[in-house]
Amino acid sequence: MPVTSPARPTARVAAHIAAVQTPIIPTVGELIRAHPGTISLGQGVVHYPPPPEALGRLSEALAVPERHRYAHVAGLPALLERIRHKLADENGIAVGDEQAVVVTAGGNMAFLQAVLALVEPGDEVILPTPYYFNHEMAVGIAGGRAVLVPTDETSYQPSVEAIRAALSERTRAVVTVSPNNPTGAVYDEGTLRAINALCRAHGVMHIHDAAYEYFTYDGHRAFSPGSIEGAAGHTLSLFSLSKAYGMAAWRIGYMALPAALLPAVKKIQDTNLICAPVPGQVAALGAMEVGAAYTQRFLPALAEVRRLVIEALATLGDRVAVAPARGAFYVFARVRTDLDDLTLVRRLIAEHRVAVIPGSTFGVRDGCSLRIAYGALRRDTVAEAMERLVRGLEAILRG
Amino acid sequence: MPVTSPARPTARVAAHIAAVQTPIIPTVGELIRAHPGTISLGQGVVHYPPPPEALGRLSEALAVPERHRYAHVAGLPALLERIRHKLADENGIAVGDEQAVVVTAGGNMAFLQAVLALVEPGDEVILPTPYYFNHEMAVGIAGGRAVLVPTDETSYQPSVEAIRAALSERTRAVVTVSPNNPTGAVYDEGTLRAINALCRAHGVMHIHDAAYEYFTYDGHRAFSPGSIEGAAGHTLSLFSLSKAYGMAAWRIGYMALPAALLPAVKKIQDTNLICAPVPGQVAALGAMEVGAAYTQRFLPALAEVRRLVIEALATLGDRVAVAPARGAFYVFARVRTDLDDLTLVRRLIAEHRVAVIPGSTFGVRDGCSLRIAYGALRRDTVAEAMERLVRGLEAILRG
Repeated sequence: MPVTSPARPTARVAAHIAAVQTPIIPTVGELIRAHPGTISLGQGVVHYPPPPEALGRLSEALAVPERHRYAHVAGLPALLERIRHKLADENGIAVGDEQAVVVTAGGNMAFLQAVLALVEPGDEVILPTPYYFNHEMAVGIAGGRAVLVPTDETSYQPSVEAIRAALSERTRAVVTVSPNNPTGAVYDEGTLRAINALCRAHGVMHIHDAAYEYFTYDGHRAFSPGSIEGAAGHTLSLFSLSKAYGMAAWRIGYMALPAALLPAVKKIQDTNLICAPVPGQVAALGAMEVGAAYTQRFLPALAEVRRLVIEALATLGDRVAVAPARGAFYVFARVRTDLDDLTLVRRLIAEHRVAVIPGSTFGVRDGCSLRIAYGALRRDTVAEAMERLVRGLEAILRG
Repeated sequence: MPVTSPARPTARVAAHIAAVQTPIIPTVGELIRAHPGTISLGQGVVHYPPPPEALGRLSEALAVPERHRYAHVAGLPALLERIRHKLADENGIAVGDEQAVVVTAGGNMAFLQAVLALVEPGDEVILPTPYYFNHEMAVGIAGGRAVLVPTDETSYQPSVEAIRAALSERTRAVVTVSPNNPTGAVYDEGTLRAINALCRAHGVMHIHDAAYEYFTYDGHRAFSPGSIEGAAGHTLSLFSLSKAYGMAAWRIGYMALPAALLPAVKKIQDTNLICAPVPGQVAALGAMEVGAAYTQRFLPALAEVRRLVIEALATLGDRVAVAPARGAFYVFARVRTDLDDLTLVRRLIAEHRVAVIPGSTFGVRDGCSLRIAYGALRRDTVAEAMERLVRGLEAILRG
């Protein structure tokens, strides 16, 4: 065809990508850098480093030429074997004929690749709200439609009936995150069983994100829907080492998925990543050999930080409503104000040097809410952080 | 809606994903494992390890707590700065108002994320054939249509006229790879300039993959279309450390892209990866401080291996046609036989213990062709490898 003047801008972004929300973490990060000395209750990170055993495994591996080359698309055999044992022992998930494992560069990638494998343009994925923002973005990137179903306003538990009502002929998956980001809710076993049964009956996938599985308090435990009898064919379980082992920089996560989806996910991972970064996989093996005991070492201190966060917020009385947060390291606070949440966040950073994440990022647009992340705090920093937040909210809400 | 029996299988893969070709490298890898002692001329890898300076940088970084946490979505500032200098000095690409840089977990991811940002379902991307298989897969994963345009049969240079004729209202990008995988062709500067001008005139992106930029022989040099005046707004340039620095396992690549696409690519990378693996980024900084001199140290030996490969193939006379391969570490051979290429590859592995990749993987379906990768060979292994390949082809073609 003849060369013509372009009728549209060359750098035009695909419409469904342009419609995806701009990630908020970098935006808040830029505000923090613009206001030096700000304490961040923003990004979901832990304060502790990876176990020494992870780095030990790594320094052994660096001397092996093979470890600088591509690995198998699904992961290093030794790591896959370790994960299989962990899934059997801790989660009750049997990897074998019906379920397979893929190691990814983080839990986000596991989710995106699963959604890319399942979703055709216009297909629907049900997300309870508040949602984890990258889940909603992933559905948009795949050309799908996120169908938002509110959780209970006081407990943030999902409603099986509301999810059932949201199912349509276009539904491809229902997503649950427990312990939850951003609310800290630990979903009831009964609720997860009912959602999983609903998915099975309706022929849709149940994607369960367990990135925070080890982070529970007051005797609560996270339940794995992948352990339910008959769940293997329609359940994807996502895990991450970023939080549990202080390995966010290393980008290692994994998923247990129906074996029928494995060929599709392998195609996508081959095209996206080829294989998960091998140094990270080697470190992950070292970390998982230490196991959950490593995370548990830090949990009493984190539980104490959590108690202090909740106590500090309680001093604000009915100006702030906080739901029981029995897991992860987040508190989701509804604030009684006419201010919009991003304005409130900007003022907290600029005027009080404390950063949190606005609730609208998580799909909560009625009223003003905030996610407070306390995983990076310790006993010696929590007092100052919460004093800034409480005094900041008092000052701004009074104004 | 009422719970009904699923009308379709729950683990149904999206139709456009099911249509994506199954990656061949893992398949050939399984054949190799099934036939111990096989010499692989399959996967594109180099035989040398990363520079010691890369590992030195890494061991410093492991002691810094910050280096175990998430990094900025586009990359570590120090690495981005080093890349900007390299792009200016070596490629003539100016990063600034018009072009931005994003560090990814490998060059494949840079390509996939660019295509996801640009392509709406049904949009077209022009790929000269033979294509790099993951490029064609990426277009399919994004729901686009790969429009295949044959290169010259003897030189594997792309035809500007053929690309012009393939442009349509749905075209979003033209892809070039030079030095080329799988043919080893180094595209002429004039051809790349003409393709870039065509893209500019037609309002489509020119995506240029320069993963093998340092691998050229006999005085040939790779040209960077990103250096062309006026190219900044419509040119993406992709680079990889996997080959140049023997760092395939580390998963580090980067792209220079029009600034107007940066917000979209950051959204996708945040959802896919959050940030490139930090240990790899730190090692990459150490490697790039050594720079191209590291790769050049291995080039004389690689050039000698290449000479021996081409000489060995020449002994087959007109049974095998090999094009001038002036770059990368691939030779693309057309074989005169009625066998299909996958059968030939299977027999070479099973009967002669030498592995190559079938040409159909690269979109070449007329006749029988093979890609021979010699980057992993050294002077002491090339003789045995080529003897097996030449004797194997002689025996099979005779049969």
